[in-house]
Amino acid sequence: MDPDEFRRHGYALIDWVADYLANSDRYPVLSRVAPGDVRNALPASAPEHGEPFEQILEDFERIIVPGLTHWNHPGFLAYFAITASAPGVLAELLSAALNQQAMLWRTSPAATELEEVALGWLRRLLGLPDAFEGVIYDTASIATLHALTAAREVLVPDVRRAGLAGRPEVGRLRVYASEHAHSSIDKAVILLGLGHDALRHIASDHEFRMRADALQSAITEDRSAGIRPVAVVGTIGTTSTTSVDPIRDIAGVCEREGLWLHVDAAYAGVTAMIPECRARFEGWERADSIVVNPHKWLFTPFDLSAFYCRRMDVVRAAFTLVPEFLRTAEGERGVRNLMDTGIQLGRRFRSLKLWMILRHFGAERLRQTLAGHMLLARQFAAWVDADPDFERLAPAPFSVVCFRARPRNVSLAHAQLDRLNEALLTAVNSSGEVFLSHTRVNDVIALRLAIGHLRTTEQHVARAWQLLREHADQLVRSI
Amino acid sequence: MDPDEFRRHGYALIDWVADYLANSDRYPVLSRVAPGDVRNALPASAPEHGEPFEQILEDFERIIVPGLTHWNHPGFLAYFAITASAPGVLAELLSAALNQQAMLWRTSPAATELEEVALGWLRRLLGLPDAFEGVIYDTASIATLHALTAAREVLVPDVRRAGLAGRPEVGRLRVYASEHAHSSIDKAVILLGLGHDALRHIASDHEFRMRADALQSAITEDRSAGIRPVAVVGTIGTTSTTSVDPIRDIAGVCEREGLWLHVDAAYAGVTAMIPECRARFEGWERADSIVVNPHKWLFTPFDLSAFYCRRMDVVRAAFTLVPEFLRTAEGERGVRNLMDTGIQLGRRFRSLKLWMILRHFGAERLRQTLAGHMLLARQFAAWVDADPDFERLAPAPFSVVCFRARPRNVSLAHAQLDRLNEALLTAVNSSGEVFLSHTRVNDVIALRLAIGHLRTTEQHVARAWQLLREHADQLVRSI
Repeated sequence: MDPDEFRRHGYALIDWVADYLANSDRYPVLSRVAPGDVRNALPASAPEHGEPFEQILEDFERIIVPGLTHWNHPGFLAYFAITASAPGVLAELLSAALNQQAMLWRTSPAATELEEVALGWLRRLLGLPDAFEGVIYDTASIATLHALTAAREVLVPDVRRAGLAGRPEVGRLRVYASEHAHSSIDKAVILLGLGHDALRHIASDHEFRMRADALQSAITEDRSAGIRPVAVVGTIGTTSTTSVDPIRDIAGVCEREGLWLHVDAAYAGVTAMIPECRARFEGWERADSIVVNPHKWLFTPFDLSAFYCRRMDVVRAAFTLVPEFLRTAEGERGVRNLMDTGIQLGRRFRSLKLWMILRHFGAERLRQTLAGHMLLARQFAAWVDADPDFERLAPAPFSVVCFRARPRNVSLAHAQLDRLNEALLTAVNSSGEVFLSHTRVNDVIALRLAIGHLRTTEQHVARAWQLLREHADQLVRSI
Repeated sequence: MDPDEFRRHGYALIDWVADYLANSDRYPVLSRVAPGDVRNALPASAPEHGEPFEQILEDFERIIVPGLTHWNHPGFLAYFAITASAPGVLAELLSAALNQQAMLWRTSPAATELEEVALGWLRRLLGLPDAFEGVIYDTASIATLHALTAAREVLVPDVRRAGLAGRPEVGRLRVYASEHAHSSIDKAVILLGLGHDALRHIASDHEFRMRADALQSAITEDRSAGIRPVAVVGTIGTTSTTSVDPIRDIAGVCEREGLWLHVDAAYAGVTAMIPECRARFEGWERADSIVVNPHKWLFTPFDLSAFYCRRMDVVRAAFTLVPEFLRTAEGERGVRNLMDTGIQLGRRFRSLKLWMILRHFGAERLRQTLAGHMLLARQFAAWVDADPDFERLAPAPFSVVCFRARPRNVSLAHAQLDRLNEALLTAVNSSGEVFLSHTRVNDVIALRLAIGHLRTTEQHVARAWQLLREHADQLVRSI
């Protein structure tokens, strides 16, 4: 593609994206295609001869776009709502063209050092001490995997060389997390060879927060059964209800017991930059490692997960491995090479978007936007609380509300109420205007409304509420 | 950023990228900054108030660009040379704006099904049977990690639940790879809890190919010592010399011994689309899993690693884990959810760029471009071979040449020759016109010239050769 052609298609795509970022709500938020529709619209083989880019873009509009669920839509209120903001999208354009591989300092001094700078900026915004060294991974799944690898490295002598198998002295190992912790912890213990049984879920209180006393009892019980505790994962903002584990108390247990404390703040961590939210983070500065995902609630296009660690030397001890073809003079002189802190050798230039986003928005606007989302969630929670046909199922400390319809004038059994709420979710989502997800809270189906998109306003939340009430009415009338 | 502002900055960046893609050779390919230069040019904290995007872009030009090593430069001849091609860059712009998360089919039917289609197209181009199901990971490191996880899942009963520790019946485990295999295999066995000692490096022949007889002996020896073989990794295109392990013979060993065979074709796999290269791939269709990286030699901006597996059910058995909040009706009806085949829950919309690249270039031009790169490498190898002051250190089956200066008129000891070649590399790289890397072959320092950039022509390779000869002359004269 010559420069003129690139310019022509590039301008056209910039126009498309400009319109998309401003008007993504023109599309149904949840895709309406059926399984197979996209696949069946495409040929089985690549073309033998190159095709005009116009034609590719036509097919993009005709075949791909209808198959999109619009995560970048202000009516996206499911899972954790995210945003690819304009400066982030532009940064990704540059990042793709530059195609940096910051495995070694010399293979991208800029990406290596900008990662340190941008993570330093974020760390200070979050109020974390400088003792936390940062590194960017793709996802929180990978960040948590590295945290637990480091914990294993500390506890099991010589595990890097000798592994876990065939070593009776290693014994049975245990990792602790709340029963509401994220599935990435399950996957990490499986991958690390600890086995799924090594993850012990700790009971939570009535607000879905891990009970530190139950944690302590579990550890004591395990130790006396000859099981060796490795690490505790505390969560600030669990996935179902965004509950906050008592990190200060958990840190106390970990310090007494000599365990690695990893804090999963993938979703809610960014709110540490708001003074009024800081209390929820009390004690996280005592963690060994923390994960915070700018690609969740900091308007950063996926992927960018920030991993902070007070003991990055342990992560390095677990992973550093320098084949001859990657030896450099700078490496010998102690310059930081990012490949030493991770399982992946190649790494994209992700810090560019974080740096541009922090500069474009500035700290004040970021704090205001997050606070605004939390305000919207409180407003929605208040509507639910005030409506006798709905009930809230969990506190809403951040920007997620868990609730369900519970019509006062009909008496429904447990399973019927679940079915009603599932039907309500399907009905509301089929509107195309909003997309909510669900979870299970205290063994009942809960609807989840999550606010996190930059352009989500009171109007979208009010419309979601209107749709919920209308469809709930209709469903009750049809019973 | 309002749409007009986005358009204005977007056009400016498209202009910048258009110019960059056409004229990246205006920059010194290897960055000339010193450690700390980029970091020290930036403030220690994020701004409190948002800044104009113009100012951010000015700093990008002034501070970041000098710190780039230009991987997208036609004089980049180091490691494996890669390209972010124009259609790939434009696809990444779209992908960033759409911010798809194809963890579930419903959260992006398009990304889920386009991944299947694009990987199907690539699989057919490579001549692999349809029995290989594909999935896209970020890197070959992660692909190989999944392959070895699956192998462990097959061999160790109940490993997912019970892990490896404290189970005497598991015994000691072993993975085999050539002494020239990639460090990602080392990292994978460490992570999986097998331990680094579990990786047994198999001797290679004079052309750096794993010896299948040595593999068989090692397995037999291990079995009789009570060690349990898990998997073999064969490489088509090793990182140092791009040697090709005898996959057919290795597959024979694996079938006899009942071992998982993973083929690392991250770099060279794409050449399977060229009929004349097909012989090097004989037997790879008998592998259990294969990794091929379009982000290496298929003009795809990083990251996109294609993992093909004949036993994806085992990968699923190792990883599938569906928390309540991710249950969907489609999932219950057997629609494929990509989160089930991986450690990472979130995943970018990577198939878009592969699809656009395959269509933009077409199979014929891709084959021609790869063949052209291999022709350039053969040409360079012929120059080296014909020059009495240089010597080649390995066969060059693909697009990488390993060689060194060995001046005929001076007698230099082993260590002196190494130092001469290190000085030669530094001198040539400091020209800014080309960037070569090094490795160690038969215990001597080898220079590595790798061709893989779309715009690398005979002119760049000839210039590299001219610089090498000139600087070698100067260095010899100064001895």
